Order: sequence, then structure tokens, then C-alpha cells
Amino acid sequence: MEGSSNHPYVPRDLKLEDYVPVVLPMSTIVGIYGVASLLVVSIVWIFSGRSKKITRIDRWLMCWWAFTGLTHMILEGYFVFSPEFYKDKTVNYLAEVWKEYSKGDSRYAARASDIVAVEGLTAVLEGPACLLAVYAIATRKSYSYILQFAISLGQLYGTFVYFITSLLDGDNFATSPFYYYAYYVGANFSWLVIPTLIAIRCWKKICAAVVVDAQKKKTR
Amino acid sequence: MEGSSNHPYVPRDLKLEDYVPVVLPMSTIVGIYGVASLLVVSIVWIFSGRSKKITRIDRWLMCWWAFTGLTHMILEGYFVFSPEFYKDKTVNYLAEVWKEYSKGDSRYAARASDIVAVEGLTAVLEGPACLLAVYAIATRKSYSYILQFAISLGQLYGTFVYFITSLLDGDNFATSPFYYYAYYVGANFSWLVIPTLIAIRCWKKICAAVVVDAQKKKTR
Repeated sequence: MEGSSNHPYVPRDLKLEDYVPVVLPMSTIVGIYGVASLLVVSIVWIFSGRSKKITRIDRWLMCWWAFTGLTHMILEGYFVFSPEFYKDKTVNYLAEVWKEYSKGDSRYAARASDIVAVEGLTAVLEGPACLLAVYAIATRKSYSYILQFAISLGQLYGTFVYFITSLLDGDNFATSPFYYYAYYVGANFSWLVIPTLIAIRCWKKICAAVVVDAQKKKTR
Repeated sequence: MEGSSNHPYVPRDLKLEDYVPVVLPMSTIVGIYGVASLLVVSIVWIFSGRSKKITRIDRWLMCWWAFTGLTHMILEGYFVFSPEFYKDKTVNYLAEVWKEYSKGDSRYAARASDIVAVEGLTAVLEGPACLLAVYAIATRKSYSYILQFAISLGQLYGTFVYFITSLLDGDNFATSPFYYYAYYVGANFSWLVIPTLIAIRCWKKICAAVVVDAQKKKTR
């Protein structure tokens, strides 16, 4: 039929052959992600509490890195390697996630190359690096700050590219204002705020360490 | 005329209304960039040599940051804020640069949003940060390593997005294999190799400083 479309996404002229509609309700999709994330955070919080050497802030950081690393590897990793997720008929949870999220940003269903490039770098490089950060904090590695700084900067760069390309392409990829603010803005906002805070903290810690190092060399 | 095109770029169906052909020969365009870069490097090398406190490697790094910073701000800055450079009739050198470079990657003339996003971040954020790095090295600031690390990582992320989006979109944006290898591959290759080397060096320096800092805290 001319003018009508087999999918709910915007822009309406987007072609998605063999699209299979999302089955699970929004509450189930978001709920499973929320409960799974809470579970990950709780486990990391409890285990990290066993060592009295790990400070409260480092325990929170371990929770963040575990949560964001698993999100990058599982959710975003699935997207990167599943170009046809919107055709999925099996009610696969991960396919449901991206069918649902595409209501806030149809570039996922449309597989825009800028999205795939950023998600690819995030899933393949940053995801495993986040889990390494959990380990680095727990075992007090000397590379802990610079690693956290590097990942945070990568997350910020990716989020910038994500928002800027959307603006340049007309900012018209959401099914409704609700999905625009809930998914496109809301779900990505944390990845602007938290990496900024962590990057600033690491910058300060590293500068302080470099000053001490320089003083020590001077007094030798 | 159907099938013919008013520009030399690939893909041939790219629409560029009011395109004005490049006037200067390739040797002049590349030559001016080469001579100007050599001038910048020479000036920084000579001035940095006046201080005996600045090591040889730091002097080379200052040359690199001055060269890459001015390239980001002037060349790439012009591109970001001149969406109609391909219509320029005044033989403006910077417009000529991008008309010529588009033979290696027509996404510049086509103003692909991923290119504009990456070039925007590079010109507006990384360019000034590079000049700050020249100053930071010269004055031995404690943030010198972390700043150089941050910019190098940004350059690497940008170059990755640049190459990955091109591959995903079919890798068919060069007028000929010559321009593909000379401009698209050749001109960008340095921004993979040099930032990688600098990032590794900064990572090592920072880890060493953090170790010293931790030891000092322990012995207190």
C-alpha cells in the first residue's frame, strides 16, 4: 500500500522489509533490563564490600563499570552483530529491546552507518575495557585511573557523535515526543553525565600523582 | 544531461548543484600545506630549543601538537563552517583543499553527517586542546600527559569512525585508486600511528607516576 508502512517508526518512508512487530510490553522490556542491572550492581556491591581496602566511591565505580560494560557487550554487542534484528520472530529479548528502542531512534532499525560505527567501537573495545576497569579498581592497579579516563572519554566521544549526527540529519527519528525524551534523550543522558564526572576525577587524581612524581625526582 | 555529472567525484550520482571546479594544481595545493607545516614545525623547533630544560622528544611533541592543532583549527575548521565550499568561485585556498581532498573521499563534498560530526569535534575541541598541549609541555604542567593522552584518544576515535563508516557505506567515495591511497588512506594514516604512539607513551608515564604516588602514601 502506498503511503502506509509496515512498521511504527519515523521517518514514515523508512523501508524495513519483513519487519516483525515488537511483542513484549514496554514495562517488561524496561523491567527486565532494570532488574538485571540491579542484580549486577548488588552482586558487585556485596562482593566489593568484603575487602576493607576498597573505598566506598571505588565500590560505586566498580558497580558502574560492571553495569555499563555488560550493557555495552550484551545489549549493544547484540545490535552490532544482528543487522536483521527487526525481522526476528522468536520474541528474542535482545531483538525486542532494539525494536522498542528504535521508537526513540529509528536509525537503529535503519542501521545508519554512524550508529553502527559508534556502537561497534563501544561494544567491542569499550565493553571489555569496562570489565577490566572493575578488576583494575579491585586489585588497585596503577593503570586504574588512566583506563577509567580512557573509557569515559570514548563513551563521551561516542555520545557526542550520536547526538550531533542526529541533529545534522534533521532530528526526526522518534515515533513520538514521549519516546524522544524517554529513550533518545533519557536513556543516553547518563552516558554524558557519569563519564564526565569520572573523567574529571581521574584527571585530578593523575595530575596530583604526576606532581608528586616530579617533586620526588627533584629531591633526589 | 542524464548520466553525466558536473563534478569529478564518486559516486557519480552525487548531486552538487553549482559546483565550481578546482583551479589550483595538486602540486600547489599539497605544496602550500607542506611548506606552511614545515614553517610551523621549524619555528616551534627553534623556539623550544632555547630552553635547555625541554628534552628532544618533548620538542618533537611540541612540533606535532602545533602542526596537528593548526591543521584541525584552520583546515578542518574551515570545512566544518563552510557547507558550500564546493561552490566557491574565488580560488580560496581552503576551498581548493577540500575540493581536491574530496577526490579521495567525496563524503566531504556531500557533507555526510558522520564526517561533519567528527570534523566538528576535531576542529572545535581537539584543535585548541592541541595548542594547549604545546603550552603545557613547554611549561611542564602536571596535566601535560593526561591532556596529550585525551587528545590522542579523541583523534584515534575520530579516525576509527571515519574509516568504519566509509567501509559500512560501501567504501566507494574515491575518484580513482590513486586518490584513494594518496588522500583517503595516506593523509589519514599519520593520525592512526602518531596518536597511538603518544597514547602509549602517556599511559606508561602516568602509570609510573601513580605507582610513585602510591608508594609515597604508603611510606608516610
